[in-house]
Amino acid sequence: MSMPHVITLLTDFGTTDAYVGIVKGVLFARAPEVRVVDLVHAAESGSLYAAAYLLMSAYPYFPPGTVHLVLTDPSAAPNRRIIAAHVEGHYIVAPDNGVAAPLLDEHPPAAMISVENDRFLLEARRHTFHSRLIYAPAAAALATGVRLEELGPLLSSWTTLPRALASVESNGKVAGEVVHIDRFGNLVTNIHGSQLPARPRITVGSTVIDRVSDHYGEVEAGGVLAVIGSTGRLEISINRGSAAKKLFVSKTDPVHVDAG
Amino acid sequence: MSMPHVITLLTDFGTTDAYVGIVKGVLFARAPEVRVVDLVHAAESGSLYAAAYLLMSAYPYFPPGTVHLVLTDPSAAPNRRIIAAHVEGHYIVAPDNGVAAPLLDEHPPAAMISVENDRFLLEARRHTFHSRLIYAPAAAALATGVRLEELGPLLSSWTTLPRALASVESNGKVAGEVVHIDRFGNLVTNIHGSQLPARPRITVGSTVIDRVSDHYGEVEAGGVLAVIGSTGRLEISINRGSAAKKLFVSKTDPVHVDAG
Amino acid sequence: MSMPHVITLLTDFGTTDAYVGIVKGVLFARAPEVRVVDLVHAAESGSLYAAAYLLMSAYPYFPPGTVHLVLTDPSAAPNRRIIAAHVEGHYIVAPDNGVAAPLLDEHPPAAMISVENDRFLLEARRHTFHSRLIYAPAAAALATGVRLEELGPLLSSWTTLPRALASVESNGKVAGEVVHIDRFGNLVTNIHGSQLPARPRITVGSTVIDRVSDHYGEVEAGGVLAVIGSTGRLEISINRGSAAKKLFVSKTDPVHVDAG
Repeated sequence: MSMPHVITLLTDFGTTDAYVGIVKGVLFARAPEVRVVDLVHAAESGSLYAAAYLLMSAYPYFPPGTVHLVLTDPSAAPNRRIIAAHVEGHYIVAPDNGVAAPLLDEHPPAAMISVENDRFLLEARRHTFHSRLIYAPAAAALATGVRLEELGPLLSSWTTLPRALASVESNGKVAGEVVHIDRFGNLVTNIHGSQLPARPRITVGSTVIDRVSDHYGEVEAGGVLAVIGSTGRLEISINRGSAAKKLFVSKTDPVHVDAG
Repeated sequence: MSMPHVITLLTDFGTTDAYVGIVKGVLFARAPEVRVVDLVHAAESGSLYAAAYLLMSAYPYFPPGTVHLVLTDPSAAPNRRIIAAHVEGHYIVAPDNGVAAPLLDEHPPAAMISVENDRFLLEARRHTFHSRLIYAPAAAALATGVRLEELGPLLSSWTTLPRALASVESNGKVAGEVVHIDRFGNLVTNIHGSQLPARPRITVGSTVIDRVSDHYGEVEAGGVLAVIGSTGRLEISINRGSAAKKLFVSKTDPVHVDAG
Repeated sequence: MSMPHVITLLTDFGTTDAYVGIVKGVLFARAPEVRVVDLVHAAESGSLYAAAYLLMSAYPYFPPGTVHLVLTDPSAAPNRRIIAAHVEGHYIVAPDNGVAAPLLDEHPPAAMISVENDRFLLEARRHTFHSRLIYAPAAAALATGVRLEELGPLLSSWTTLPRALASVESNGKVAGEVVHIDRFGNLVTNIHGSQLPARPRITVGSTVIDRVSDHYGEVEAGGVLAVIGSTGRLEISINRGSAAKKLFVSKTDPVHVDAG
């Protein structure tokens, strides 16, 4: 209760402007005791899938009560709505454009509201940047103990993210894609472990993998392997190498699974 | 009074060395309770205008009492002087090379000193990096409640920044330039809103804009517009696009305004 | 004692994934009062020398009791061992792959252990990333006052880093190399000041420098000079310029010293 709360930031601001610093100024002015942690500031516009995946993979490592603030273009949300949700003991504040949908789909929120109370919105200036900034005070409020319901009216649904999960055809074949490639060249797919057939045969580019491994040690250095990552998604990796480079795979490339 | 103070950092250190971390080590060793916020660490040397603009645009978002530490090459200051100023309830510690001048010109400081008291200077080592580091303790001192006057003798003037403001010709024409281009491609100029004629006609590259808008919504997506930004400067933007790319404009390109 | 402790991070995670943020989540979940400072997140894999140098150059600026956490690939350590050491009043937690060796060689640790107590290891998931993450809790433990000896069994030796120091031939000639080039183009070598002859003649590329300077002011702007840097290593610089660019020198290029 008296522990300092954490706010994480996932933005499309980059680090060559002062925008990320400005957000922290807004947060510290309203919640002086908070800790602020940068997740990623390079989420390219349009890359909702990568941002959604990064949010979903990072949040469970943070202490309960952490507020995860996603500051991407709210005008890209079809209804320009900002949602705040209580999920798995954490708070998510994000535009209602699908960036939080994979997380909310998997862990339905205990409560969710539309941020509309002016007390928790920065005075709006209609700049490209400022339109992202206006909902930062909502995160500061949650981090200082303001109840979710004070921020705006309750919501019961959210904008979904097309292809957040791979599609499963009637014959059991799974048609997915690569949604994120990390610094180490690991390929994160939108195929959930629960979508896999009993004996999966995974095809990505010209490579076929016929089993899902428990850990990297199952293949020699340089070997290709498929694992279920921390978000439950299928990931394709090379032990001590870059799958992206070695398999010539790029983001949005298709990944197919059929029964072996 | 017992609230933790914030120190912001605006440096030319980049993030591929440990220099920014080292500065934080120096700050935490002297002010353990402080919060440190990165503004920008990529301010290219020579780009005083961009740094001055970033400082001026960011500081108002921080809580009163925040110390803004600008760690750029002090030997580039004509007098190699480091100034500390109390401005609008904030503290600025910066080399006297003009980087703080646009801010000080607009908001004359309540007090300003030259940092000369050895107690608040790190033992000097004459390295490229170390010469920047030596005045970090002055920021830590201000953040822990040391009075400005203890840091050194009072000053009443500062080095100005040529072309910090556009020039206005006798016929009312304004000759300015682009001083900063942000990540979203917005063009920040050195033309202050107060310098504009009643019916401004703005020319940048081959584009002419004949009005100043209140907000982005006034033009359709892809449309060009001129707005007065948060620092009072004229900015040229494209609604949901990059003005820099679409208008083929670079930093230091001229911007002209005459009466329409 | 009641002062918040500092943890520094030196990783190979980059900043385009959420990995650095995830580490901070793990740290704040276990040590809510700690301050976390980024040193460098771009240490390229294989560049142990650069990481070792950055660690050695940064740690003395931090307050006593600071924990320096080096999160690079532990499986690259020959014994896959993680060491935690008490050195000069600071704590180092790092893979036993030589990254801490130059520091430990110069300042033998008061105590050193192998991190093996499961209480201070994150549940292992055998991912490229996760194998780096598992020893983060050990740093949080040290920052909250857990005694070093509780983390694992005492060690009395560590893996050394070949060429951590230049070699000195029987005739007194020193054969070293450039181990790091900073943002300002300064060349950091693996030649320790104590290895230099009385009247050193330093050769790097086609440039010969016949003295070691005390500070930059000894040469005019644009002049080449050799100095002993903050870690005791020989560094070659250009006053107000980039030695790397002007002298056409790259990392791992040889540096020779003989008696003048």
